[in-house]
Amino acid sequence: MYEEHIRAAARSMAENMQRSPVPMYGKGLRLPDKGAVIGLLKEIRRLVFPAYYGDPELMTLPVEDYTALLLERIEGQLARQIALALPEEQEQRASVLAREVVEALPGVQRLLLTDLDATFESDPAAASKEEILFAYPGLFAIFVYRVAHELYLRQIPMIPRIMSEYAHSRTGIDIHPGAQIGAHFFIDHGTGIVVGETTVIGENVKLYQGVTLGALSPRKGHASLPGKRHPTVGSDVTIYSGASILGGETTIGDHAVVGGNAFLTDSVAEDTQVVIRTPEPIYRERRHREK
Amino acid sequence: MYEEHIRAAARSMAENMQRSPVPMYGKGLRLPDKGAVIGLLKEIRRLVFPAYYGDPELMTLPVEDYTALLLERIEGQLARQIALALPEEQEQRASVLAREVVEALPGVQRLLLTDLDATFESDPAAASKEEILFAYPGLFAIFVYRVAHELYLRQIPMIPRIMSEYAHSRTGIDIHPGAQIGAHFFIDHGTGIVVGETTVIGENVKLYQGVTLGALSPRKGHASLPGKRHPTVGSDVTIYSGASILGGETTIGDHAVVGGNAFLTDSVAEDTQVVIRTPEPIYRERRHREK
Amino acid sequence: MYEEHIRAAARSMAENMQRSPVPMYGKGLRLPDKGAVIGLLKEIRRLVFPAYYGDPELMTLPVEDYTALLLERIEGQLARQIALALPEEQEQRASVLAREVVEALPGVQRLLLTDLDATFESDPAAASKEEILFAYPGLFAIFVYRVAHELYLRQIPMIPRIMSEYAHSRTGIDIHPGAQIGAHFFIDHGTGIVVGETTVIGENVKLYQGVTLGALSPRKGHASLPGKRHPTVGSDVTIYSGASILGGETTIGDHAVVGGNAFLTDSVAEDTQVVIRTPEPIYRERRHREK
Amino acid sequence: MYEEHIRAAARSMAENMQRSPVPMYGKGLRLPDKGAVIGLLKEIRRLVFPAYYGDPELMTLPVEDYTALLLERIEGQLARQIALALPEEQEQRASVLAREVVEALPGVQRLLLTDLDATFESDPAAASKEEILFAYPGLFAIFVYRVAHELYLRQIPMIPRIMSEYAHSRTGIDIHPGAQIGAHFFIDHGTGIVVGETTVIGENVKLYQGVTLGALSPRKGHASLPGKRHPTVGSDVTIYSGASILGGETTIGDHAVVGGNAFLTDSVAEDTQVVIRTPEPIYRERRHREK
Amino acid sequence: MYEEHIRAAARSMAENMQRSPVPMYGKGLRLPDKGAVIGLLKEIRRLVFPAYYGDPELMTLPVEDYTALLLERIEGQLARQIALALPEEQEQRASVLAREVVEALPGVQRLLLTDLDATFESDPAAASKEEILFAYPGLFAIFVYRVAHELYLRQIPMIPRIMSEYAHSRTGIDIHPGAQIGAHFFIDHGTGIVVGETTVIGENVKLYQGVTLGALSPRKGHASLPGKRHPTVGSDVTIYSGASILGGETTIGDHAVVGGNAFLTDSVAEDTQVVIRTPEPIYRERRHREK
Amino acid sequence: MYEEHIRAAARSMAENMQRSPVPMYGKGLRLPDKGAVIGLLKEIRRLVFPAYYGDPELMTLPVEDYTALLLERIEGQLARQIALALPEEQEQRASVLAREVVEALPGVQRLLLTDLDATFESDPAAASKEEILFAYPGLFAIFVYRVAHELYLRQIPMIPRIMSEYAHSRTGIDIHPGAQIGAHFFIDHGTGIVVGETTVIGENVKLYQGVTLGALSPRKGHASLPGKRHPTVGSDVTIYSGASILGGETTIGDHAVVGGNAFLTDSVAEDTQVVIRTPEPIYRERRHREK
Repeated sequence: MYEEHIRAAARSMAENMQRSPVPMYGKGLRLPDKGAVIGLLKEIRRLVFPAYYGDPELMTLPVEDYTALLLERIEGQLARQIALALPEEQEQRASVLAREVVEALPGVQRLLLTDLDATFESDPAAASKEEILFAYPGLFAIFVYRVAHELYLRQIPMIPRIMSEYAHSRTGIDIHPGAQIGAHFFIDHGTGIVVGETTVIGENVKLYQGVTLGALSPRKGHASLPGKRHPTVGSDVTIYSGASILGGETTIGDHAVVGGNAFLTDSVAEDTQVVIRTPEPIYRERRHREK
Repeated sequence: MYEEHIRAAARSMAENMQRSPVPMYGKGLRLPDKGAVIGLLKEIRRLVFPAYYGDPELMTLPVEDYTALLLERIEGQLARQIALALPEEQEQRASVLAREVVEALPGVQRLLLTDLDATFESDPAAASKEEILFAYPGLFAIFVYRVAHELYLRQIPMIPRIMSEYAHSRTGIDIHPGAQIGAHFFIDHGTGIVVGETTVIGENVKLYQGVTLGALSPRKGHASLPGKRHPTVGSDVTIYSGASILGGETTIGDHAVVGGNAFLTDSVAEDTQVVIRTPEPIYRERRHREK
Repeated sequence: MYEEHIRAAARSMAENMQRSPVPMYGKGLRLPDKGAVIGLLKEIRRLVFPAYYGDPELMTLPVEDYTALLLERIEGQLARQIALALPEEQEQRASVLAREVVEALPGVQRLLLTDLDATFESDPAAASKEEILFAYPGLFAIFVYRVAHELYLRQIPMIPRIMSEYAHSRTGIDIHPGAQIGAHFFIDHGTGIVVGETTVIGENVKLYQGVTLGALSPRKGHASLPGKRHPTVGSDVTIYSGASILGGETTIGDHAVVGGNAFLTDSVAEDTQVVIRTPEPIYRERRHREK
Repeated sequence: MYEEHIRAAARSMAENMQRSPVPMYGKGLRLPDKGAVIGLLKEIRRLVFPAYYGDPELMTLPVEDYTALLLERIEGQLARQIALALPEEQEQRASVLAREVVEALPGVQRLLLTDLDATFESDPAAASKEEILFAYPGLFAIFVYRVAHELYLRQIPMIPRIMSEYAHSRTGIDIHPGAQIGAHFFIDHGTGIVVGETTVIGENVKLYQGVTLGALSPRKGHASLPGKRHPTVGSDVTIYSGASILGGETTIGDHAVVGGNAFLTDSVAEDTQVVIRTPEPIYRERRHREK
Repeated sequence: MYEEHIRAAARSMAENMQRSPVPMYGKGLRLPDKGAVIGLLKEIRRLVFPAYYGDPELMTLPVEDYTALLLERIEGQLARQIALALPEEQEQRASVLAREVVEALPGVQRLLLTDLDATFESDPAAASKEEILFAYPGLFAIFVYRVAHELYLRQIPMIPRIMSEYAHSRTGIDIHPGAQIGAHFFIDHGTGIVVGETTVIGENVKLYQGVTLGALSPRKGHASLPGKRHPTVGSDVTIYSGASILGGETTIGDHAVVGGNAFLTDSVAEDTQVVIRTPEPIYRERRHREK
Repeated sequence: MYEEHIRAAARSMAENMQRSPVPMYGKGLRLPDKGAVIGLLKEIRRLVFPAYYGDPELMTLPVEDYTALLLERIEGQLARQIALALPEEQEQRASVLAREVVEALPGVQRLLLTDLDATFESDPAAASKEEILFAYPGLFAIFVYRVAHELYLRQIPMIPRIMSEYAHSRTGIDIHPGAQIGAHFFIDHGTGIVVGETTVIGENVKLYQGVTLGALSPRKGHASLPGKRHPTVGSDVTIYSGASILGGETTIGDHAVVGGNAFLTDSVAEDTQVVIRTPEPIYRERRHREK
């Protein structure tokens, strides 16, 4: 039926798959539905910022009915995806977990309203809070993180990661759902930011593009391994663009300011400004301009 | 009708929203339609680069009819979105503004053709100008900037920002619509580039990935504040990857070349090459290889 | 029929296009279909990782039938796009080239399974191989690169570039399809990575976010120019975030480790660890906190 | 630009259109949006029969909120379409008319519930009322008629006709929106039924497939002409399949039964059964069977 | 929140629904999904006539694999819909019933191939069997009937009726799923045909447009009532357009031919041709032509 | 892989298909694309009645450019479908045939404008010509017939039939594409109308619902058989609802009027009115009303 070269390639791929240690073929695999998870994020955004993302006609409902309606819908959809993400024998926990996440959403919304304030206060280019809500990648990445974190806290597999990679893909900001981040968080521009799994961040912190809060040197082993691999950042801290702060025992004290491109593996005390003496530039005259 | 935990969460969210200083609920909010704004960018791309993005069948029209047809359509759609972005009492200015933007588009196209030339001349990996037009993120980001800038010049709210964040999300290149950028502009790779609101860039400038043209230290206050916060770059300047140039009074003279990872807060004279003495690497033998 | 300002703008744009050295208008242009090329990548992903991206119902087929079915479909669609990308007089080579690419796919799959192993071994935050396959941008970028590279090897124009820019847009990782990369390749986070056209990378190499493997200083001229412009990296090498390694004669020996933010234009011997003495930070007490 | 035969045909069609007495070309024409009108019918069906056509999640709302929500949405959409259907100078009447139609919908629903009863009582093949609501073309045609009639009563142009032709196309039942039809109306099978504009039908009437309630002989002139052209049917009347009753002065008295294929141009008294002596069939033996 | 007239209408509709004897509001109702049922019909058509409706690429599979693949998919989808149509306490019978229907499909296909033959032999306007399969409403209506009949036989509620009304809406042919119809069945044109629930039809029968095989006079009561209400038609019978044959004891003998517009409530013997002496037309000269 | 009952059914269906005289499986079959043919009808409607169905923005073009643009597009799409409908060895005739059809379209449009006039003059319920163009099934069926007839004249297989069955399905009006119909044609209501392949109809003819212009008694054999099987209708003829006129030699003279439900197999002279003495109804009093 098929030409021989097709058959040969097919045979060869079948062998590849049979040799693979992870299941590669067949319909038994339990996996959440990526599209549905992204749809859930959009639904939650409609719930949390209705005036900016919600259906205008639904908003003729009293505000409590609108939120109840969406909360119930979100709980149902979330339970379905969690059931697919859990091992089969734990499937029945899905509805309890979904309910817990739903109960956490008002707190998430409260935090996001502080992040909105922080963004408006910190970005001189922001014309209005409406513009921030409608167009800022930083706030979007924080929103996704705060939701995914609630799932991570309840040890729900796969889904928090799908969420955070969706934000990463759209904004270039990679915040692990395991990180702990306080209120009034602000991210500017954001592309290239990495915040690792065991990072702890206080309140009122500002991060600029290209900042890494990472591990010193990735060890062998996996997430189940105990131990804090990423830094702790206090409250009221500002970290300028391109700075790297590495290591699980590295601590940045409250009210510290870390200069752009700093590379820190040691802790910084409270109320300290860290300045990098940038390498002295050398200026040479150019004789023969290349066009 | 709803379970009690849903009702409780709904009540709690309703309170969050009532306390918020920005309007959070209800259908009165005037906002442009994000999808329509992105659609407009695609329509303008069809107008400006018809052979690459246009409908082949429409191109049986004489070229002037094709462009007139699209220009009229774009003007209408743009006027609708501008009307939504303006405060209600200024709504009637929308059609004049849309007309002005449309009148500026031939100039935008002329500049983009110089950017295309610059890209082809500067990127040794570009096989043809067709490939650049069809696949290069740098040219796409410049295209979006040049369009958004025309709206920014006319103080149209929200829409320029929606446009620039769309390009940012797709390319990792974040050019504020307020920046002023001359002809023959070239961006290579581009991920992580940030160009601030009051930046001025001359003609024939090249930027590589990760370059920041930023503010020294973000002040309090907002865009309405007067003052130049970002650098001025002359003509025929090249800035290599990862360099940061900060401050509203920092000036890079014509024909200058700024080396990769340079961090400059002082001005650079004309015809100068800035080299960073990179920190001397230390070489240690590795005895025990980790696999 | 049109208002005069529309007519004037249309005339002006028609002139712009007539003056352009590249064809700007008309339906004769031969170009592959971008949407179809991206569709092909998705189809190939369904072929290579069926349990994660395939249609569950089709997987009731014996595995060889499933793969043969998809291989034949892919070969047909690929041939159509290659025919559009080739100059008209070479169009008839398309089906031979598509067949060659299809014959290369089992090898591509075999390499990707080694990349999956490498990712699982190297990322302590990865909970399972399933999660990696389903959600990791690094593996996605490598997948696209390995497919695009097979087309590049056969000198098929445009399509490999469309593929690599698609991955670049979604992940911030920019690997030129011309690069040569060995098995067990691992990318962490990835945003900002640039791997140039003539780069050579051995087996078992790890790259972190923001790494550049680039040219020393882009020369004039284009891809057809002979010569290696980008570095050679041996096997079992790790390059930490933000490091730049530049130049066609720069070689990183086997088992080397390059520290974060290193900026290298000289070669590094085997079994060497390159550490950057980071500029000594200066700590100043902050008296007057800005809030 | 075009081949000559295309140009010639285009010229010829342009002439056709210029000669046409109705406007044939150009964008000034005011017309309702057919798709939107059909969408409105679906929305009204969701309102009137929520359990069968509504969104299950919306139905977590209290029933009055659900109906208020849909009523408001319907009123808005209807006003938009009516504005397009009215002559420009009457456009501002649209919102009043839409409001009146909305106020009539509870009455429409009440009538439809009687039609549902009638259908269940009269069709021995109906397994349940649910099946009727979900699948019966007769009830669907009556639903569309009852809605369209409310618009006809308010002299809204075009829209009632678009509605009735939609039902006609889907069911083969052609009820003019001008007809007046009482409660408890039942239609069986329905294909081929025609009910003319000035028909009057009492309560509790049953029509079978192929029944025509028509004009005697269509006169010259148009709808604006006064006069009743179609019959009057009393209450508790049954008209079997294929019967034609013609003429504006033809009256069928209460409790009458009209036999299949009857062709009546004269009135029928109350409590009368009209039987057609069907032409005596002639039976001939068939000698040479055609296969 | 809502204007008063909206609230009033909503209240009034809420009352209508509360008074209704059938459930009108709320999400508990168990109903099959109409769209899914129609989707199933399309899927079965792909199975039964693959060369005309199937996916060409899937047909590279060996024919038995193709059919097994579709059969399994159909069985799964059918089981889901049957479960929704059954009362909750019988839900678990759904998979057995779906399996039985699937096992009946080869027989259905065999019958349809005889119907195809009959159509080709009987319609002088049919250019080829391919055209019949691809475009004839008669064969489509028979296909839907034969499938729906298998569900009716197993007393599955709602779904057979949804299927037959779908065919009715598209073709104007209304065959009740309960009818029993032998092989080699042919329908010409078809609009207006009605075949009642307890009709029995032999092999090799031809029906023309507008034929009714109906009940004498619909009684009170419903489908659960015992008794045959519709006629019995022998084999090798032809019934011309517009004929009505009514009554459960009316029998048309083998090889009979019933003339157009005949109206029969009595049985017809074998080998008999029934001719209707059509009413003698009266010819009058027209003096004053109306234009 | 499959359960045994699936395998058994699959085997059985594979046998059915192997025994079938028409090809039932495999991807070699040449068939036009039904969706594309229907799409073509819509495109032609946009061409012929632009103000009612065209894209308002395209109509800013001069009318000749608009029509040329659509004509070229239609010619291309039509050629593709004709190529699929023709036997492979005649495929290259497709573009000539498509061109001929395109050249015939101005004539088709001219005829349709006369049909529009006829409809407006003959239907007292038509409020305006705009309403007719926008909503009348009769005019739609005539439109489809006039287009399909042009393809039939050029002996293009399959496509005319797909077109006429599409109109049949939407309107219940079944006009064979082979019929010859003069200008000023009017159809009222339309459901159940059948017009056979060799029918000839003059100018200014009116048909009401349920009229059959058919064959006397379908013979054996197929369309390739010579001979006229359907009647000839002169000019200025009116045929009222339910009338059947049968036979290839039956002729209705100019200015004749045929009464409703007439059943004619003999010719009618010019200027003649045919009245059917309808069977005298019998009136019986009903004593015991059934409710």
